[in-house]
Amino acid sequence: MVESRLTGSVRVVGVGLLGTSIALGLRARGVDVILSDSSPTNVSIAIDYGAGRSASDADEPQLIVVCVPPDVTASVIVRELSAYPRAVVTDVASVKKPVLDAVITAGADVTRYVGSHPLAGREKGGPMSGRADLFLGRPWVVAGHSAISYQTAAAVDDLILDLGATLVEMTAEEHDQSVALVSHAPQVVSSLMARRLVSAPDAAVGLAGGGLRDVTRIAASDPALWVQILGANAAPTAEVLRGLRADLDEVLVALDGAASAGVDTGAGAVAPAARADRSVPVGSGSDAPTSTPTPIGWRRMLAQTLAGGNAGVARLPGKHGQDKRYAQLVVMVDDTPGELARLLTEMGEAGVNLEDLRLEHSPGAQIGLAEISVLPEAVERLTAELNARGWRIAG
Amino acid sequence: MVESRLTGSVRVVGVGLLGTSIALGLRARGVDVILSDSSPTNVSIAIDYGAGRSASDADEPQLIVVCVPPDVTASVIVRELSAYPRAVVTDVASVKKPVLDAVITAGADVTRYVGSHPLAGREKGGPMSGRADLFLGRPWVVAGHSAISYQTAAAVDDLILDLGATLVEMTAEEHDQSVALVSHAPQVVSSLMARRLVSAPDAAVGLAGGGLRDVTRIAASDPALWVQILGANAAPTAEVLRGLRADLDEVLVALDGAASAGVDTGAGAVAPAARADRSVPVGSGSDAPTSTPTPIGWRRMLAQTLAGGNAGVARLPGKHGQDKRYAQLVVMVDDTPGELARLLTEMGEAGVNLEDLRLEHSPGAQIGLAEISVLPEAVERLTAELNARGWRIAG
Repeated sequence: MVESRLTGSVRVVGVGLLGTSIALGLRARGVDVILSDSSPTNVSIAIDYGAGRSASDADEPQLIVVCVPPDVTASVIVRELSAYPRAVVTDVASVKKPVLDAVITAGADVTRYVGSHPLAGREKGGPMSGRADLFLGRPWVVAGHSAISYQTAAAVDDLILDLGATLVEMTAEEHDQSVALVSHAPQVVSSLMARRLVSAPDAAVGLAGGGLRDVTRIAASDPALWVQILGANAAPTAEVLRGLRADLDEVLVALDGAASAGVDTGAGAVAPAARADRSVPVGSGSDAPTSTPTPIGWRRMLAQTLAGGNAGVARLPGKHGQDKRYAQLVVMVDDTPGELARLLTEMGEAGVNLEDLRLEHSPGAQIGLAEISVLPEAVERLTAELNARGWRIAG
Repeated sequence: MVESRLTGSVRVVGVGLLGTSIALGLRARGVDVILSDSSPTNVSIAIDYGAGRSASDADEPQLIVVCVPPDVTASVIVRELSAYPRAVVTDVASVKKPVLDAVITAGADVTRYVGSHPLAGREKGGPMSGRADLFLGRPWVVAGHSAISYQTAAAVDDLILDLGATLVEMTAEEHDQSVALVSHAPQVVSSLMARRLVSAPDAAVGLAGGGLRDVTRIAASDPALWVQILGANAAPTAEVLRGLRADLDEVLVALDGAASAGVDTGAGAVAPAARADRSVPVGSGSDAPTSTPTPIGWRRMLAQTLAGGNAGVARLPGKHGQDKRYAQLVVMVDDTPGELARLLTEMGEAGVNLEDLRLEHSPGAQIGLAEISVLPEAVERLTAELNARGWRIAG
């Protein structure tokens, strides 16, 4: 067993997915973990799972980790600071500035509190869903402030390193603005797009492909939880969305310009005599004069938004944001156990490394499409190899 | 060889990804395919790939398939209708009403033209990227109109069935409204969200997770092509986006209400005496009076958007839209060839069918996370089985 950096007991308040996962990770390093929850049943379950022990009057925790829903996080922190006057307290809520402000306003001893936020899992799920390895390799923000000393906050750093997460330091404001951008605004955007589908005809929805599925996947998130999260980080999220709305307004101006100009499908060829001798300008933008002048340049306005999207997605870490480095191959896979494994095994036998993989199922079909990303130089060899083994390559 | 339903030659104009794929699929059924392109090099390459032959003066095609970029589709259709007065002409552009209108306005013989649109591949890529199986199981819309007879249009139906696609009939207007909803508006939304990242601090972008990656994946699309597509389908796309903007405005009103109310992190506990004896109401919504009255009910407004998103995404076909039917398990996989195959093989050995799979890579880590979807009743057994074989399960 690798020993913990922590020297004392750790009290975990709230044994949902996050709290139980923290407790299990600490237990794996031999830490004395004390479990507390407003539900005695949850505490019993977490103890059964080996996450720690129940509280006693003699407890003197070194560190308290508050893992309760966002709407009660601050009040629980205040209570814990008061009940354990020698403990350092942290929390794992996804919003940090309002929590810190509330703790300060409540007059609590903020010299022993520093907020944190692991970017892993969800703030939902019972103790049964806890995993000791949940935080391995994930960013975990510590939102420092001037009232807590480096030495006192070190216990929180130890916790994060014990659990195998990557420590990220930023202020509470920076954190809240960051998660507004990378998590809260994307949730709203996904929900807004998915909401457009509610009253759409079946035939339209039947044409949906992988792009729409990706954009709307997180729209399946739990509304009750997200009302709390968005409510707690309302101003930073609104700021991101206002920027997006300004760009959207530009797009609408551009689309209105395009609609009134109406040249993009070759409608400029309505005077066929004038273009009869024209060779097909594949891919060229037509600069033919239009009936309605569009001085703002709708093509350029649209291109700005689309190119801005290119530039934005290219900044994302991980392989999904760098798709252009890889070539994609779509292989048909029967929807039976082991078929995809066989495909990947045969790719491995061909010595080709899988860089990314996406699955797509045609509506109602007993066949799936596996989109395989590989290095561009491997495509030809892999295609030949898979064809030789009888795989059907769809694109 | 399965015989073609078509009785004559097929002329394919434009041998990019779509044109070449159509040609290859028809050649596999023994059809005489004539290839044409503004680039003689592309025609030569497509011929080398076995997609057909070059044109001759004696050609009398039964069917002509126009596969050129959207901004020249209508003019090429008009030209082909005129050059081959006995052929039926179709096209594969992703927008249908403006093309039909332009062909009618040009005075062409619209009794021999019917537009179509295969929901497969992209309108981009050279003849090298063509695949005979590209359309298998994919929807392919035929946008019928009153001027073409059922009998004449039958050649287009034969083409679609020959290529293994699923025939979907709708009007040109219905088609354009449908793709505005399921393809063009999602592209704009994804680009708008990704564009927000351009000027963000590195630290913020470093916190990005799988949700943001999904929402912004198609923001990597080619701007030049999408300016054409959006320009050609401007009005229907703008209509979808205006509906989205109205919802976004509601969300902003709600967020402003939440920001001025500011109760969601337990800040209501700023009077600690009043709540000192209060047990932690996990997950309950606080109805405490707030300093700023929000008569519109910001929680309800946010919940409507989020719940609307739930309802919308649930309508999508395929397994991604039905995630709730499955339980997810996240397994750590070394980023080396064959590791994922080994995981799936061992799942197969355990008799557990893989319902869906997503890969995620931690920034800079030599380890990936495989999110496996399985039937809920299989989770316990699979977890035990994978643990026993030494796999690390992360959540």
